[in-house]
Amino acid sequence: MRTSKGTAPYSYDGLDRVIHEKARLGMLASLSAHPKGLAFADLKQLCGLTDGNLSRHLQVLQEAGLVVVQKGYKANRPHTTCRLTANGRRRFLNYLAVLEQVVRDAARTGEEDTGTAIPMKPKPA
Amino acid sequence: MRTSKGTAPYSYDGLDRVIHEKARLGMLASLSAHPKGLAFADLKQLCGLTDGNLSRHLQVLQEAGLVVVQKGYKANRPHTTCRLTANGRRRFLNYLAVLEQVVRDAARTGEEDTGTAIPMKPKPA
Repeated sequence: MRTSKGTAPYSYDGLDRVIHEKARLGMLASLSAHPKGLAFADLKQLCGLTDGNLSRHLQVLQEAGLVVVQKGYKANRPHTTCRLTANGRRRFLNYLAVLEQVVRDAARTGEEDTGTAIPMKPKPA
Repeated sequence: MRTSKGTAPYSYDGLDRVIHEKARLGMLASLSAHPKGLAFADLKQLCGLTDGNLSRHLQVLQEAGLVVVQKGYKANRPHTTCRLTANGRRRFLNYLAVLEQVVRDAARTGEEDTGTAIPMKPKPA
């Protein structure tokens, strides 16, 4: 049994629950790929969320200081833009490092046992 | 804006909620690395969970057909062993493929905008 990473190597304490929630994870990945920010309507479409769900999760991310939401006007119509804060980007990158650890841990399949190992498929080049 | 992956490329529908829950993710990663199964006490320690939490999450994974729990005796004492089912291993691998996609998507930072790109740290060799 593996103990090199401490007594609870699979507790993944770094998987911040604010970020780990599935819809919010998609929103953060989306905003991370668009550093200039995204309009509410575009973010909604990219993440496949309803207005209500997107608003609710944006509020959680805003309260946690991960995202800023700016309400303004564009062509005389209300226009809401969302973007990651510097702190949000930093916390998201930390979270991603833990995700990468989960993937690496899972790829160890069978290394620690003599049971049947199912190899992971190789990553595309 | 990226549209090559359909209209909602960041919806991550493949992030199965049964598996995505943080404690269960740790349990599945742990069981995945130990194909012969793990004793209840070892799984509990590896994942840093209490008896109650582990039992509750094991029940969810059992009901979803991802894990089997075998109650027996070892040295005349009750001994519970948990292991992944073939279906559980398959679903976990599918889930991991989506996690890898999240990491790849996030690494695109700045490719689609002309905003400030923060490079991802390289994976260890």
